[in-house]
Amino acid sequence: MTAEQLQTIREDFPILGETMRNKPFIYLDSGATSLKPRSVIQAMEDYYTGYGVNIHRGVYEFSERATREYHEARVKTARFIGALRDGQPYGSGPGHVIFTKSTTEGANLIAYSWGRTNLTEGDEIITTEIEHHSTLVPWHPVVGETGARLRFVPMTGTGEFDFTAFQGMVSSKTKAVIITAMSNVTGYMPPVEDIIKTAHQAGAVVIIDGAQFVSHHPVDVQAWDVDFLYFSAHKMLGPTGLGVLYAKTELLEAMPPFLYGGDMILQVHKDYSTYHPLPEKFEAGTPHIAGVLGFSVALDYLEGVGMEHIHQHESELIAYTLEVSKTLPWITVYGPEDPSLRGGIFSFNLEGMHSHDVGALLDAQGIAVRTGFHCAQPFMEQMGIAGTVRASYYLYNEKQEIDALFAGLEKARALFL
Amino acid sequence: MTAEQLQTIREDFPILGETMRNKPFIYLDSGATSLKPRSVIQAMEDYYTGYGVNIHRGVYEFSERATREYHEARVKTARFIGALRDGQPYGSGPGHVIFTKSTTEGANLIAYSWGRTNLTEGDEIITTEIEHHSTLVPWHPVVGETGARLRFVPMTGTGEFDFTAFQGMVSSKTKAVIITAMSNVTGYMPPVEDIIKTAHQAGAVVIIDGAQFVSHHPVDVQAWDVDFLYFSAHKMLGPTGLGVLYAKTELLEAMPPFLYGGDMILQVHKDYSTYHPLPEKFEAGTPHIAGVLGFSVALDYLEGVGMEHIHQHESELIAYTLEVSKTLPWITVYGPEDPSLRGGIFSFNLEGMHSHDVGALLDAQGIAVRTGFHCAQPFMEQMGIAGTVRASYYLYNEKQEIDALFAGLEKARALFL
Repeated sequence: MTAEQLQTIREDFPILGETMRNKPFIYLDSGATSLKPRSVIQAMEDYYTGYGVNIHRGVYEFSERATREYHEARVKTARFIGALRDGQPYGSGPGHVIFTKSTTEGANLIAYSWGRTNLTEGDEIITTEIEHHSTLVPWHPVVGETGARLRFVPMTGTGEFDFTAFQGMVSSKTKAVIITAMSNVTGYMPPVEDIIKTAHQAGAVVIIDGAQFVSHHPVDVQAWDVDFLYFSAHKMLGPTGLGVLYAKTELLEAMPPFLYGGDMILQVHKDYSTYHPLPEKFEAGTPHIAGVLGFSVALDYLEGVGMEHIHQHESELIAYTLEVSKTLPWITVYGPEDPSLRGGIFSFNLEGMHSHDVGALLDAQGIAVRTGFHCAQPFMEQMGIAGTVRASYYLYNEKQEIDALFAGLEKARALFL
Repeated sequence: MTAEQLQTIREDFPILGETMRNKPFIYLDSGATSLKPRSVIQAMEDYYTGYGVNIHRGVYEFSERATREYHEARVKTARFIGALRDGQPYGSGPGHVIFTKSTTEGANLIAYSWGRTNLTEGDEIITTEIEHHSTLVPWHPVVGETGARLRFVPMTGTGEFDFTAFQGMVSSKTKAVIITAMSNVTGYMPPVEDIIKTAHQAGAVVIIDGAQFVSHHPVDVQAWDVDFLYFSAHKMLGPTGLGVLYAKTELLEAMPPFLYGGDMILQVHKDYSTYHPLPEKFEAGTPHIAGVLGFSVALDYLEGVGMEHIHQHESELIAYTLEVSKTLPWITVYGPEDPSLRGGIFSFNLEGMHSHDVGALLDAQGIAVRTGFHCAQPFMEQMGIAGTVRASYYLYNEKQEIDALFAGLEKARALFL
């Protein structure tokens, strides 16, 4: 990405022109949520001001337009993650795109609908210690109810996946392997393709948490041959209140619905109901129409820049970050040392300081970072720490902001120690 | 509401200046979703362009602001439905406000979390034949799993609640009474307060579907003493993708969580987790922040006009509608004849015409109505019809639009017959 390209991108994000604590706003918290470009905000405004009505059952022009655009957004999402090739009509690929409210709802949908009907006493689910709570916690009640067991692949000291240990754990008992494609704490990216191959050889389904990965890298669910993948719109330039669940058709067909209500119903009688075919079977009630239309434009924006370029840009930023941090003995960095194993997340602590104090002192300088345990308590426990400071990058971040971060850390130390 | 007040209101809704099929847009489908005033759209734009970051765990100014406003919206919602009195701090009332994605999610949350843990073989749930699918269908799997039984209060020929029959059905077996406060098909409003009293005398909890009612009438959950109430933001000037569940604290405390994930977690270990207190226990994952902030402004707007005035205005519109329709022998109107028993919904059929044809011919004249079975197949079955045409009103509708509807119907007949 050239400096000019980056400046053009930055100008598309109105919030980057704001000040925080009377300082130019430096946003290093895209792992929590991304900023939104003007075009996405505008698309939602256009809907609400121009044709903001309900979809599916209206027999009038505005409703037909909203319904058509809602469907087009679904097709675009399927293409974006490789579930459909260019020109393929919706439904001809190996799976479906279901709009949820969040990554969290996607994870829970799988646990409720697939987990409770496919697991039984003695079955094993393999996951890791680096998972986000939203991926891990929905399975706690499921294992309690079914008698299945959660097993954890050990991680190395730098938080990397121990593939050999994993191979030793997979067996005919393994019914599911659940893993993040990118750690929200360290940015570490496990070898997802190899994990999927190994799991499939044992007959297990693979559930991928794409909340951090999908926003930053090209994804091809068909090349991965993944069974379930969930992620959030708000982390990829889209609006809040919207998530995506991709799953293979044969799995979704065998699963009972999760939420029951209007739009997923074919016939309702007093005592029973029959359901619509996919994907409507899993989309009960009036959906987040404005959100889906905004997300559609977010995908256009990401594709316009190019996911390869975004990944490349963030790789450069993180490589630069790791290089600088090596020269600073008072910084402890978490995660792999090899920048090629990680996305644009920089998780660290400063000697003698609590992460919250670091965050607060950066805030005073207009710099937004996240601090604490990052919804990953088991990982923190394993590392023996209470939390970290996390700076996370996206396509709009620039090298000068990383320099400002390091200058801010020096200042925080000077003020605090 | 004076003509000037109404014009001022209409000017706040940008979409009312649009044309559809090259005709001035006449929106009579607020039962499906409401239009949005400029201030609500602006509030979401302000968030996304000015301080659009995540809530709860950010230690920086923008995150603190978004978190504070999110909480204020919750307090405002609680006051709006009478769960808190003016000046009472959040948490001091009898219940909690939980932000969901929709009415449908609220209904499912109760069915999954309360239903599956409180019902057993032989228990009875009393409901009616006029319920929306989102209220009825979530209970089908629950009765299947628990052995509880759904019983239906018979309705009169005009779709009214048979209170005497209800009294005869309630017994110590009754564990829940589930009823809409306003039919989405006819606008009929059952005697909710009396139903709640009778149910409570038998020890049953009462679950109210407020999707149609809360947007149009003053509500006081404390005066009602209702146990559960759910409704949607998008039907009351708010954004898509957001719903509200109100429930009594003692019930929510005894219920297991519904969605599991970040933000509702206190401590996560590998094999178990402990949860945050209410209301966070039921709000897993990044919520629809922009939606909640937009909804907050929608509540300001509704309170600014006054819910009593809105109800009064719609009562006048429906009384006028029923009066005119009485003079037209080719219209069959559904629901109670007494306008005081119904909200601003006018459901009808034209002699010799399918409801979809009527809808399509109105669309050609710029008039948006809903046609079909309105997610209420059991009600249609009971009435022996396939569907109706539904015109539904809100605070921005005017008498001239009803005249246009009747003129449109005359024209549709002339073209069709």
